[in-house]
Amino acid sequence: MSIIVQKYGGTSVGTIERIQAVAQRVKKNHDQGIQMVVVLSAMSGETNRLTALANQLHGSPSAREMDVLLATGEQVTIALLSMALHAIDCPARSYTGGQVTIRTDNQHSKARIQDIDDHRVRDDLKAGKVVIIAGFQGIDVDGNITTLGRGGSDTTAVAMAAALKADECQIFTDVDGVYTTDPRIVNEARKLDVLTYEEMLELASLGSKVLQIRSVEFASKYNVPLRVLSSFTDEGQGTQGTLITKEEKNMERPHIAGIAVNKDEAKITILGVPDKPGMASTILTKIADANIGVDMIIQNTSQEDSTDFTFTVNRSDFKQAMTIVRTLATELDAQDIIADNKVVKVSIVGVGMRSHAGIASKMFQILSAAQINIGMISTSEIKISVVIDEKYHELAVRELHHGFELERL
Amino acid sequence: MSIIVQKYGGTSVGTIERIQAVAQRVKKNHDQGIQMVVVLSAMSGETNRLTALANQLHGSPSAREMDVLLATGEQVTIALLSMALHAIDCPARSYTGGQVTIRTDNQHSKARIQDIDDHRVRDDLKAGKVVIIAGFQGIDVDGNITTLGRGGSDTTAVAMAAALKADECQIFTDVDGVYTTDPRIVNEARKLDVLTYEEMLELASLGSKVLQIRSVEFASKYNVPLRVLSSFTDEGQGTQGTLITKEEKNMERPHIAGIAVNKDEAKITILGVPDKPGMASTILTKIADANIGVDMIIQNTSQEDSTDFTFTVNRSDFKQAMTIVRTLATELDAQDIIADNKVVKVSIVGVGMRSHAGIASKMFQILSAAQINIGMISTSEIKISVVIDEKYHELAVRELHHGFELERL
Repeated sequence: MSIIVQKYGGTSVGTIERIQAVAQRVKKNHDQGIQMVVVLSAMSGETNRLTALANQLHGSPSAREMDVLLATGEQVTIALLSMALHAIDCPARSYTGGQVTIRTDNQHSKARIQDIDDHRVRDDLKAGKVVIIAGFQGIDVDGNITTLGRGGSDTTAVAMAAALKADECQIFTDVDGVYTTDPRIVNEARKLDVLTYEEMLELASLGSKVLQIRSVEFASKYNVPLRVLSSFTDEGQGTQGTLITKEEKNMERPHIAGIAVNKDEAKITILGVPDKPGMASTILTKIADANIGVDMIIQNTSQEDSTDFTFTVNRSDFKQAMTIVRTLATELDAQDIIADNKVVKVSIVGVGMRSHAGIASKMFQILSAAQINIGMISTSEIKISVVIDEKYHELAVRELHHGFELERL
Repeated sequence: MSIIVQKYGGTSVGTIERIQAVAQRVKKNHDQGIQMVVVLSAMSGETNRLTALANQLHGSPSAREMDVLLATGEQVTIALLSMALHAIDCPARSYTGGQVTIRTDNQHSKARIQDIDDHRVRDDLKAGKVVIIAGFQGIDVDGNITTLGRGGSDTTAVAMAAALKADECQIFTDVDGVYTTDPRIVNEARKLDVLTYEEMLELASLGSKVLQIRSVEFASKYNVPLRVLSSFTDEGQGTQGTLITKEEKNMERPHIAGIAVNKDEAKITILGVPDKPGMASTILTKIADANIGVDMIIQNTSQEDSTDFTFTVNRSDFKQAMTIVRTLATELDAQDIIADNKVVKVSIVGVGMRSHAGIASKMFQILSAAQINIGMISTSEIKISVVIDEKYHELAVRELHHGFELERL
């Protein structure tokens, strides 16, 4: 008998009517003989409401107590969905993270799942019940309530699917799948039927609105087929969302799966840094110590005995990063600093790149034909990223989407 | 080192400001070296909000799932009070019922506490922390969340006090103690400094606004001194509320502690019932089977071979009780039925009655002087109750209060 884990986010359970719609969908699967596990987030707005209460009491509330507070959000929705299922004669039983038991480490607000004891869940499934589980939360070895951080419900769903060896983990959200690129930029953006875990990870900027990246890593590790679906369209309408799975040898794949955009990037170049071992580490350690995340890092081949070192940071960290870099440049006797906080990163992603040469040169050709200057280039096995002036970002995405014919299946 | 358990009801933690006020009060005690355990209810209105959500989904929601839902109310307040204490540099740690562990039976929505494992609480108290516990809830042997029913937070507080052998269990509410009678009826009603458990139980109708009766029984059983206090007055103002404790041999007590009124009573008399064994049981079983609670029961000495049987029920059950009684009267070949659904029960209560004769006759004298007709009389060791026409109830209470000089200490 097949087992399916479904996860519904906050907007999917945001009102009584939405909860009833979820119940109908779950019952339909259950009636077909599928063993159903449902993982829920808090009703949309609830986490913010609770956080606001906490902030009125303490500038930086204890992480342990925040977890006690926020865990109530999902506890409410699991009880309500159980009632909605009972109302349509579908047997169901709710579980908090601690009741499952989902055992985590003790890192409050960003705990990691260590172990799942699913014997109660299995017993209920065998007894024909729908099992409803509070996402986002667990319990540490001392019985303290923990949370996995925002979006952690996706991780709960994948972890449950892995533990139960479920046939599929379905993530219901307010979009109907993963697209070749942002449909607000390119009208012809096409929903992808299938993607590999690696592609999904590289398409983070598209996927972040859809899926927690951590849950994709988790799914990849345990080889759980992950499907992104909309809870706002009827199953009858035949949409199957996007399936994210491991790469099959004989998968007929287009070269490029999608185009991702990271907005809000800022670029900093230190010119004429002495080309000595440990230089990159010196610079990046100072940046990391200030809790600033670095995205791209590029160092060109040195000319004579000095080199140019470039990296990008999130635009909100730009000012602080510049202060650090200015001090560093003096210390390192660097030549100059060039900075630009009006850049974006555009990436093309696809496992097909591996076996097809010429993708990079085609990308640069397309951009060049559109008169778009490339500021930085970085490549990985299945991704090519360029940093360009932010004013060209929609144009670049549209030209690449058209040039690689992503609108065609 | 002394241990005090304090319980704060929903209005006492109903807003951020009220929670901060509770934190100040708790810290003051903690700073004096008292080991503090605080039991909390949900914020006022929260239980009703959650119940309304449930009722939109199911006409009679599963008791198990209602408990999962409602238990979130206290889980929110314990986290918030912890944060409020941290904000004023008072170490504190919250516990849900399940975390304590408060073990109950599996009677959802009306569970009874079976056992308390307080080793975590004791460790925290020894480490100098304030321990904050979610009232009203526990966990059964299978890990299911249970609730003790409305007002169950009082029971949690008393049970924790009993387990910890606390010096006192203080119930903070929106009134400053137990009064000789309802101050809305008698202006001169006086706050009682001390009461016995038995008196408090008999004064249920006064006390129900203040204390869960079950918690008084619990306190009596484990001999936990119970104090009712207002959370809306400053300690500095010197109010010590009302202490409810066991009867001391040398307690100097007035004869009467207070006057209770049960409104909404209805009286039913079956006239001319054959005086045969088992008659009372036949009648009461039929009433009980319909889930109707019976308050007073009186059967007069029989005349010849028939008797009159009278009992009172809550006015909301009157119609249903009458339907049953009419059928019964025919079956039993009774003479007639007399009913009155506009009566009240007025009771005088006091352990002093035991050693003082003449209290009953004085009560009847006072009522007679006020031209109030007595419909029924029932007595227990420390209580005398009369049923009278509801229109005289304020008059009766005022005359008795004055007649027994309850306004004087």
